[in-house]
Amino acid sequence: MLAAGPVRGATSDTAWLRAMLAVEAALARAGGAPPEVAAEIGAARLDVAALGSAAAEAGNPVVPLVRALRAAVSPAASRYVHRGATSQDILDSAAMLVAREALGLIVADLSAASAAAARLAEAHRDTPLAARTLMQQALPTTFGLVAAGWLTALDGAADRLAAVRDAGLAVQLGGAAGTLAAFDSPSIVDRLAAELDLPAPVLPWHTDRTRIADLAGALGLACGAVAKVAGDVVLHAQTEVGELAEGQPGGSSSLPHKRNPVAAVSARACAAQAPGLVATLLGAMGHEHQRAAGAWHAEWAPFTGLLRAAGSAAHWLARCLAHVRVDTARMRANLDLTGGALLAERVSAALAAKVGATEAHDLVRDAVAGGRPLAEALAGHLDPARLAALLDPASYLGAAPALTDRALKRHGERP
Amino acid sequence: MLAAGPVRGATSDTAWLRAMLAVEAALARAGGAPPEVAAEIGAARLDVAALGSAAAEAGNPVVPLVRALRAAVSPAASRYVHRGATSQDILDSAAMLVAREALGLIVADLSAASAAAARLAEAHRDTPLAARTLMQQALPTTFGLVAAGWLTALDGAADRLAAVRDAGLAVQLGGAAGTLAAFDSPSIVDRLAAELDLPAPVLPWHTDRTRIADLAGALGLACGAVAKVAGDVVLHAQTEVGELAEGQPGGSSSLPHKRNPVAAVSARACAAQAPGLVATLLGAMGHEHQRAAGAWHAEWAPFTGLLRAAGSAAHWLARCLAHVRVDTARMRANLDLTGGALLAERVSAALAAKVGATEAHDLVRDAVAGGRPLAEALAGHLDPARLAALLDPASYLGAAPALTDRALKRHGERP
Amino acid sequence: MLAAGPVRGATSDTAWLRAMLAVEAALARAGGAPPEVAAEIGAARLDVAALGSAAAEAGNPVVPLVRALRAAVSPAASRYVHRGATSQDILDSAAMLVAREALGLIVADLSAASAAAARLAEAHRDTPLAARTLMQQALPTTFGLVAAGWLTALDGAADRLAAVRDAGLAVQLGGAAGTLAAFDSPSIVDRLAAELDLPAPVLPWHTDRTRIADLAGALGLACGAVAKVAGDVVLHAQTEVGELAEGQPGGSSSLPHKRNPVAAVSARACAAQAPGLVATLLGAMGHEHQRAAGAWHAEWAPFTGLLRAAGSAAHWLARCLAHVRVDTARMRANLDLTGGALLAERVSAALAAKVGATEAHDLVRDAVAGGRPLAEALAGHLDPARLAALLDPASYLGAAPALTDRALKRHGERP
Amino acid sequence: MLAAGPVRGATSDTAWLRAMLAVEAALARAGGAPPEVAAEIGAARLDVAALGSAAAEAGNPVVPLVRALRAAVSPAASRYVHRGATSQDILDSAAMLVAREALGLIVADLSAASAAAARLAEAHRDTPLAARTLMQQALPTTFGLVAAGWLTALDGAADRLAAVRDAGLAVQLGGAAGTLAAFDSPSIVDRLAAELDLPAPVLPWHTDRTRIADLAGALGLACGAVAKVAGDVVLHAQTEVGELAEGQPGGSSSLPHKRNPVAAVSARACAAQAPGLVATLLGAMGHEHQRAAGAWHAEWAPFTGLLRAAGSAAHWLARCLAHVRVDTARMRANLDLTGGALLAERVSAALAAKVGATEAHDLVRDAVAGGRPLAEALAGHLDPARLAALLDPASYLGAAPALTDRALKRHGERP
Repeated sequence: MLAAGPVRGATSDTAWLRAMLAVEAALARAGGAPPEVAAEIGAARLDVAALGSAAAEAGNPVVPLVRALRAAVSPAASRYVHRGATSQDILDSAAMLVAREALGLIVADLSAASAAAARLAEAHRDTPLAARTLMQQALPTTFGLVAAGWLTALDGAADRLAAVRDAGLAVQLGGAAGTLAAFDSPSIVDRLAAELDLPAPVLPWHTDRTRIADLAGALGLACGAVAKVAGDVVLHAQTEVGELAEGQPGGSSSLPHKRNPVAAVSARACAAQAPGLVATLLGAMGHEHQRAAGAWHAEWAPFTGLLRAAGSAAHWLARCLAHVRVDTARMRANLDLTGGALLAERVSAALAAKVGATEAHDLVRDAVAGGRPLAEALAGHLDPARLAALLDPASYLGAAPALTDRALKRHGERP
Repeated sequence: MLAAGPVRGATSDTAWLRAMLAVEAALARAGGAPPEVAAEIGAARLDVAALGSAAAEAGNPVVPLVRALRAAVSPAASRYVHRGATSQDILDSAAMLVAREALGLIVADLSAASAAAARLAEAHRDTPLAARTLMQQALPTTFGLVAAGWLTALDGAADRLAAVRDAGLAVQLGGAAGTLAAFDSPSIVDRLAAELDLPAPVLPWHTDRTRIADLAGALGLACGAVAKVAGDVVLHAQTEVGELAEGQPGGSSSLPHKRNPVAAVSARACAAQAPGLVATLLGAMGHEHQRAAGAWHAEWAPFTGLLRAAGSAAHWLARCLAHVRVDTARMRANLDLTGGALLAERVSAALAAKVGATEAHDLVRDAVAGGRPLAEALAGHLDPARLAALLDPASYLGAAPALTDRALKRHGERP
Repeated sequence: MLAAGPVRGATSDTAWLRAMLAVEAALARAGGAPPEVAAEIGAARLDVAALGSAAAEAGNPVVPLVRALRAAVSPAASRYVHRGATSQDILDSAAMLVAREALGLIVADLSAASAAAARLAEAHRDTPLAARTLMQQALPTTFGLVAAGWLTALDGAADRLAAVRDAGLAVQLGGAAGTLAAFDSPSIVDRLAAELDLPAPVLPWHTDRTRIADLAGALGLACGAVAKVAGDVVLHAQTEVGELAEGQPGGSSSLPHKRNPVAAVSARACAAQAPGLVATLLGAMGHEHQRAAGAWHAEWAPFTGLLRAAGSAAHWLARCLAHVRVDTARMRANLDLTGGALLAERVSAALAAKVGATEAHDLVRDAVAGGRPLAEALAGHLDPARLAALLDPASYLGAAPALTDRALKRHGERP
Repeated sequence: MLAAGPVRGATSDTAWLRAMLAVEAALARAGGAPPEVAAEIGAARLDVAALGSAAAEAGNPVVPLVRALRAAVSPAASRYVHRGATSQDILDSAAMLVAREALGLIVADLSAASAAAARLAEAHRDTPLAARTLMQQALPTTFGLVAAGWLTALDGAADRLAAVRDAGLAVQLGGAAGTLAAFDSPSIVDRLAAELDLPAPVLPWHTDRTRIADLAGALGLACGAVAKVAGDVVLHAQTEVGELAEGQPGGSSSLPHKRNPVAAVSARACAAQAPGLVATLLGAMGHEHQRAAGAWHAEWAPFTGLLRAAGSAAHWLARCLAHVRVDTARMRANLDLTGGALLAERVSAALAAKVGATEAHDLVRDAVAGGRPLAEALAGHLDPARLAALLDPASYLGAAPALTDRALKRHGERP
């Protein structure tokens, strides 16, 4: 119900049908059919819903497709339909076409999200923010470094998916037993690969599902990267934190103050589909002999589901980050919530030079434990200007700005 | 693509819409609406596809539903629509209705499968069969006991699902924060429960997802039970084993001899969806505070997917077992494949009484290792009639028939 | 590394060995061994580490156990060891003993956690708290109702596990092929069951793994319930929220102010193991024929892992809740963060009676949007005392206290 | 219990401790400690079991490690221990060292398995075998092509793991908040990376877990590849098929004829752990802010578990394939089981030239349906020598030998 963005269409029943027809047409061309005959096959108009029902009945979508296709085209074309192929040749090759298209769209949405993260990283390179570990404020960092972390993770996910798209897919052709026995020459595989602009595999891969697993792993990784970023947005957007807000939040008719981070929430929900679907695909790798007795059929739903989950997650996140609003004042106010405790370590060191390490430690510890602001508790021990400087989170950011620059530079250098 | 049987329809978008309207109508009645007003709400005709798109856009199906519903009914009815409720009240209650309906259908298909298994157990109570452990023939058993094992597992799965349907579902109603603040009295929950014939929960369970987990676990168990039976059918149907065949096998246009056990294969494929979907639902149990920021939305796809997987798996298996053909001659022939090795232990004991334990052991071991039939190898050592009796697998079935009777008796005693 | 509490010991290699010896001893007694002989078997001292290595080498822990056991006991005892049994009889029955023990411990820790939740619910029955939906403050609720929700979920999980422990386990005995061929009578099963105080199954269940699945589902449910509660504690303990704190938080040597909610964090981490392990167990249900070729072996690690995960999660949560500190002042202060926006709906209704619905709605909406406290923005429109009363969250709690009472009553009525 | 091979040791508690000490020593060197001081840290002897218990108690293994390490070394060394680092710096970097070591071992065992597959492919390049689809005999293929398929899948898995080992790991160093605030310069990261011979990351990756996900995906892929091959061995080794047998099968004391394919069965069982563990790691990617509140801790068990599962699966498979026995006579006999039905398509075509397509089709169909050998049924229609040639499976292998050559060539060209 949450499928959003262009991948929804690119993985629809219609898209699958289009891809299967493209494979049949390319197979006809590779098998020597005249161009107009192959074109007729590729352009056949079939009833998606009827094929869907027949596929459910037959336990296989290609058998009814071939029947309908042969009936729909001229006799001259009919004899080229599916010649020498097995169902899995068509469906696996179609899956590669669907995946290639979908991966392009997912990479585009991830890239849009990472571009938005890059803008945030650049704009907030020096904006102090409380770093939180185990959900507790720990030390100052910058919002720029946070966004740079998002950027790096999203770029990594996009690069991984692009690599799978460019080198991890392959045409499938082997015939009934994977021996190409019904073809004159194994070169048919290369011709089909060329027609579809897909790599030719070393062998037919009907029961070697490492390609599917590789794709699944990359999609799972991408969903995890989205989940991290979206989760951070939700946490920063909490009423009590208020550092981020979605630009197009979800409202509530009865609760006028609600500004629900709907895009981030939806991104999380889509991303949460991935681990289980990846597990299903990995768990189905044990294809028996030359054609699996169930494991291949078991791939169909999670294959589409995973592409959709990743595509929708990436799309929701891109929408979220493109419009996210940053409240630097709340970031600063939250840094001050603990009365300087985030800088306790640094203040202790300075104080120790004056009163000795033990007394310094005790003074700071007691102030923090008592909830007393350090500026007040240590007023008598350090010069006010010095104390204010020590307690300034903006001057204790470590390498956060430099790291942000480094991440932005790497982002800019990507091909 | 393999969704088969009645659960497909019972979990369709239309079925979900119908359930949500039923909840809105029941809420109106529970909230004091005149019957004709509530009936108007329940009978509203809305555009499923348009609602689906709007839901994907809004990240929530109830918000557009309420908007469309209010627009579709009379002003008198409109003011009762969704009164006091939150989106999750409607969707969770609708999920319970969808689950109740689907569970009934799944239980029916599991029961059909187990009835078929019972018939097989009864008919083949005394039919000898090679028991296989780690895929190696081990000892004789009976096909009746095999079928009785299927029966027991399927009955167990059906009973578990029936228990969830009868006691594990509950109406959902709590309002925006789960406090029922917009209602006059908490008794509204009991009234809604009565209207929908669902149990009333102790508390609103917006973020206590133990009910969902319990349902998920029971569906996962059912799919596992189906997978075991369907897997056995596939193994028995192998060309080299040939003990079972599907009555309506899938054919192949180019390979006239193929009799693919399509129903069993499809059942396996559907069942294989379950573990990952169960994991997704369990992994989404950590709903934050009073309404989850993603985990609830993450349930929707696997909730429907799991009902469909279990329903389709049960349906395919029922179809498979209803028509399965048993080849008792092949069962017997396979028992003889090893030249009596399955009865080696028994023969050794008898032989030991004649030639001593050591020589008996060596004679039998050497014969088996050399692939020599025991009837031939031991011809000089035991009386032919006695030897034939000892090597008769039908007389070394242990308690297999008695155990079969016990399972059938238990099956017959179920309510 | 996070395994905590008594389940760690109850699922150790030593515990497994003890359970297997108990089964062998009970089998001897059931098979007619004199009491002292059976006692000798049960009391044998074997080398756990050596058996572990041998098991890894043999791919089976029972084969080396039987060898070592026969060598360790007297000849009189040796002939009763493992008589008529198959490896899986011993290991499955031992698994039931291990599970029964572990389930008791898990139920105890869940009950300790739910008792702590009950105390919190009772003590804070009327303590106002901001309800949060999608991580945004929504309306007032009470901390009592929150704790009552935890209580209900934890009780549900404990009840489910107790039901599995009491009725879902069963002794395993079938011999090499599940036909009991090596025993005089099938009544041996009942005798072994009586010896071990476990139910006798209808049939040997070597390849019917519904019991394992049922246990897995219940443990997954329990982990999910723990994850929900622990996640809430972590969120309430955030520096910016500060409503809860662990009584024994984790510290940091360099960051003196850190009060990490270590018990809740550890509970979440343990609970997060469950979905994947449940999926592994469900995915392994397709045991072939009379003994699986891998699926049974695949159960061992997740079976123990899941018991440990649930036991550790429950233990960490019990520790967390037993010592959790509630800051009611922060709860109240957080309710005021939005200047009364949580009561906007209620105030609008009262204001409408004075200025009309439209103006009331606009006044409230503008105040909320502008971040202006309602008490100030509406000062000229409503009587100050009336306005203060309307904006008092403690008077807009709906049925929260009544629901809390209901949950506590149900908790008290449990057996 | 089934952990086998060298990865067991490489992922033991001792191995983890060794890795953590190596990181602390390298950090000391990178931070300017004199060589002998760093060496002292790296060589400290600590009590693994005591640290394990303390880690379980503290919810973190590094805190007790640092305490014990500081106590164990000289004061000069103590001040360099853990300087500027956070627990996750040490544990994540140690995880990279453990993974690097384990990956090398897994790649070696996969390579041993693929080398064995290559030998089989070469030796049986032209050995006819029945191809099976959906467990039904379909057409002839060769055992060489089957082994070539194993080879290709295993090489692909090994290459993927080697790529992760060589480019997917990275040192972790960021300090308490990931800003390197406690270090003089971010160049400390490069120095630590150089010391450990690990890549330096763009940013600290405490909450960007794409590296972990990539490793998990590659291990899941490897386990799936192993599962496919091991499953095939088990199927080929069935009593009724008998084409393969393990060279070191598991026996049975009571069943002298059993030759259990224990290595293949164990490989399957180990591989079956992967999907769930991968799902756990992917599901834990949503690390909050700068340090996760549970998700990091949740990685520990599945990280080690997955390395072990893959390592053990690869090891069992290597052992299986190194000693597998091929029964070419049974392969040939099985091809003849259906009386030539596997060649029906080819015979029909030849027959059609004589009697017309329709009669040819009917003759063949009736013979196959009636279970009559084609050689007999068609004796009157085709010349005996011609018929025998047509029915010779060895002459209908399609491109199987050529494809085998192609796979072997690719295998030989790998670096």
